[in-house]
Amino acid sequence: MDGEFLEEVSQGLVYETLRTYNRLPFAAWKHYERWNRSLSFFGLTAPITFERYMKILSEGIEKLEGEVRMKVYFSLKSHKVLVVFQPLPRANVEEGVSVKFARYRRIPDLSTPPFLKITGRTDIVLARRDIKDCYDVLIIGASGQLCEGSFSNVFLVKDGVLITPSLESGILDGITRENVIELAKSLDITVEERIVQAWEVFTADEVFLTHTSMGVVPVRKVENRILFEEEAGPITKTLMENFEPFALNRKENWVGAL
Amino acid sequence: MDGEFLEEVSQGLVYETLRTYNRLPFAAWKHYERWNRSLSFFGLTAPITFERYMKILSEGIEKLEGEVRMKVYFSLKSHKVLVVFQPLPRANVEEGVSVKFARYRRIPDLSTPPFLKITGRTDIVLARRDIKDCYDVLIIGASGQLCEGSFSNVFLVKDGVLITPSLESGILDGITRENVIELAKSLDITVEERIVQAWEVFTADEVFLTHTSMGVVPVRKVENRILFEEEAGPITKTLMENFEPFALNRKENWVGAL
Amino acid sequence: MDGEFLEEVSQGLVYETLRTYNRLPFAAWKHYERWNRSLSFFGLTAPITFERYMKILSEGIEKLEGEVRMKVYFSLKSHKVLVVFQPLPRANVEEGVSVKFARYRRIPDLSTPPFLKITGRTDIVLARRDIKDCYDVLIIGASGQLCEGSFSNVFLVKDGVLITPSLESGILDGITRENVIELAKSLDITVEERIVQAWEVFTADEVFLTHTSMGVVPVRKVENRILFEEEAGPITKTLMENFEPFALNRKENWVGAL
Amino acid sequence: MDGEFLEEVSQGLVYETLRTYNRLPFAAWKHYERWNRSLSFFGLTAPITFERYMKILSEGIEKLEGEVRMKVYFSLKSHKVLVVFQPLPRANVEEGVSVKFARYRRIPDLSTPPFLKITGRTDIVLARRDIKDCYDVLIIGASGQLCEGSFSNVFLVKDGVLITPSLESGILDGITRENVIELAKSLDITVEERIVQAWEVFTADEVFLTHTSMGVVPVRKVENRILFEEEAGPITKTLMENFEPFALNRKENWVGAL
Repeated sequence: MDGEFLEEVSQGLVYETLRTYNRLPFAAWKHYERWNRSLSFFGLTAPITFERYMKILSEGIEKLEGEVRMKVYFSLKSHKVLVVFQPLPRANVEEGVSVKFARYRRIPDLSTPPFLKITGRTDIVLARRDIKDCYDVLIIGASGQLCEGSFSNVFLVKDGVLITPSLESGILDGITRENVIELAKSLDITVEERIVQAWEVFTADEVFLTHTSMGVVPVRKVENRILFEEEAGPITKTLMENFEPFALNRKENWVGAL
Repeated sequence: MDGEFLEEVSQGLVYETLRTYNRLPFAAWKHYERWNRSLSFFGLTAPITFERYMKILSEGIEKLEGEVRMKVYFSLKSHKVLVVFQPLPRANVEEGVSVKFARYRRIPDLSTPPFLKITGRTDIVLARRDIKDCYDVLIIGASGQLCEGSFSNVFLVKDGVLITPSLESGILDGITRENVIELAKSLDITVEERIVQAWEVFTADEVFLTHTSMGVVPVRKVENRILFEEEAGPITKTLMENFEPFALNRKENWVGAL
Repeated sequence: MDGEFLEEVSQGLVYETLRTYNRLPFAAWKHYERWNRSLSFFGLTAPITFERYMKILSEGIEKLEGEVRMKVYFSLKSHKVLVVFQPLPRANVEEGVSVKFARYRRIPDLSTPPFLKITGRTDIVLARRDIKDCYDVLIIGASGQLCEGSFSNVFLVKDGVLITPSLESGILDGITRENVIELAKSLDITVEERIVQAWEVFTADEVFLTHTSMGVVPVRKVENRILFEEEAGPITKTLMENFEPFALNRKENWVGAL
Repeated sequence: MDGEFLEEVSQGLVYETLRTYNRLPFAAWKHYERWNRSLSFFGLTAPITFERYMKILSEGIEKLEGEVRMKVYFSLKSHKVLVVFQPLPRANVEEGVSVKFARYRRIPDLSTPPFLKITGRTDIVLARRDIKDCYDVLIIGASGQLCEGSFSNVFLVKDGVLITPSLESGILDGITRENVIELAKSLDITVEERIVQAWEVFTADEVFLTHTSMGVVPVRKVENRILFEEEAGPITKTLMENFEPFALNRKENWVGAL
């Protein structure tokens, strides 16, 4: 930790988090595109080609066993690229997880573009310090709308309809989120992307999270209020069961990977 | 730059910026207190005593010549303390500087406490990338109120009254700001700390910035509109001339330093 | 309905709603003061003395039987005062009522002072049109905070503590609300006046409304979610039972009336 | 002024303001449509046909001499329609008018739809009481954006481009505003409808208002800051001179009138 390091920190690093399925980087093209969108916000162009990006990922995956999580960073100061590889963390979430609401709100779009995945975003930093014995915290937006978890997106089910905060709610357009929306549509489940009020989690029939490492994660408790006693609701379960086969079969998720 | 480093970055570093006058650290006690306030927000207590803090500063100052700028960092992950010493940057600002408004707004209090000096605050990060050929950018709050520069506080003069955004505007309580307020009061200038609308910079008689390195800095242009032709207004000039003698004479600024 | 009338409408009328207990106007002084506060916002002074005000109320009450509801209006255009007398509406609310959230938000303080009781406030106008088969609608503020009903204040009970939106939430400081707070304190119930999030009605143990006509009204359903099956919670019931004796005994409520 | 009247007031009246040119109601169809849009917001359909509407207007115009101003009201309570006819007020505005900023903000869209022309909107009521010796006041929105005057729309000219707050700024889509935009386009002036910050009136080259009675009104002073010394800027003058011939020639403005 020195002066140079501190300048890197102060200017921030743009990042993306990926995982493998069957030891291949999943949705790598989408993550690459999203990473470049963040960079282009700063007037920067892709520092490495997609081919080079895939090569770096493949080489890193080789050095570990099992499924792998990758974080790809780009320093806004030095323009260096760094990738961190770890064994994919796993958790048993089938019985449902506990979440609560974050104490600090999502930073509004007027203050920071919601799609900007950059180290040091204080809404994320502060939310993560609050997780404690919850699985994740749900971040609420400036007008009380539900946004997203600190590392997940959130979905509700109400009267058979799948509901999730729209992009204009001020969220990151998660790649697992998009896959779940497409999965639901393929199963003829009506999907509503709209502004969702935080209180709607308590009038919903089912609530679940989505994120890269775990796919679909049923929520059993919100702010200590139990949402289901025995097992996750039927739509959550259907989506959990079908997520992996669906995602693995979608060609879009394997662009450039095979 | 490695994985360890990236975890430090992601969790952020709390920092303070100080300077010397006559090779002694100015207002060190206030900066120490403010740094601890940021830490206590995270449930942390002072990692080092004030005596130790002063010793580290003195030793670092010894190694450089002339006046010195110091940045004191505390890593929220590793709990390490790091101090960076540099020659105090100087600029010729007597003829007035140009500023503009930041494109992104101050992060609202509901999203992040305004007093939190932490690396990666995106309102600051984004504002600084926008400075370009200006001296600083003025950051506006969620409701259109004037907040502060990316590294300075801002003051207006209107009909002989000194006006500056109040703490409830969502600003950092700058130490130079506080010294200037006290100086003005000692000169029988009426001071108003209140919500100030961004447009008031254009109906004001005088505008100036304050920050640690330079004290009082007259503003000559805002968004390319010229505020004064020949020289800074009379109250700005009075405060510029009297700032250093006043600040150097205030006992509060030298607690523990002599 | 003519041109003159329409000018009155366009400029608005400041009003207050009172009721009698035992055929005497309850808390008349507080209502008179609050009415004058609204008037003074417009730079106007009390158009009639408190004695005159009481006389008008007494004469109107004489003409009706039973308990009476009074609305006292002041036209901002013609400066006329008008009082409308009606039999006090009664409803059986002991088994609890249904409420929902208003579709439009409370007008923020920056747009209209929350204490301003004026005809045509669109947050109230729009909320009332939405009541339909509910008893009242709960109006939410700009940042998602719980404010008040369209004609009532709202209270929660959580872990034995009585919680109600603070004045800074952007509410009208209801006179029944104030009497209930004082009653709770007299019963050694801890009272928290604070910013309350809308979603907290779903994690609360009890929810009730207060308003002039009916005192304490237990809430059984919010947005079709049932809060209690059999009967209102213990603190709600205690406050319901004790409200009338307490309010009738408080000297403050009878200033000038006897 | 009685109880019945007060109920009408409390529920509000939806209205539109029109004028004649050459004793014919101008843009009557657009005003009729806009009035119905407000009504449909309340789930109501047009209470009278356009033919009937035109007949009422024509009959009223007959009874006055010269050009006429008409206000068409619809009571949300009694569903009565009322039209008030007055001689068209005229003012000499060629030398430019003074405006200032309203002390209270535009009611945000989440609280009240911006297109709703209803008596008692407190943003309008409070703004009008503040006009005093100004011609109009400029109402600012919740985030500091410029919205509109209390009875006018506002335009800026900057570097030859005509700039006006977009509908998403939270404004009423004025009919004169729309005619001026079309006029400018017909003259090959670039038009930007966008979010405009309040402070931009001070960096603009020209500022003017538009409203039904007077068309294009140059602004000479904002908050006592003089924008032009001698005469209105060239684009303002061009639009002033061409407005009437252009508007009178547009077929859209005379649907059903001739």
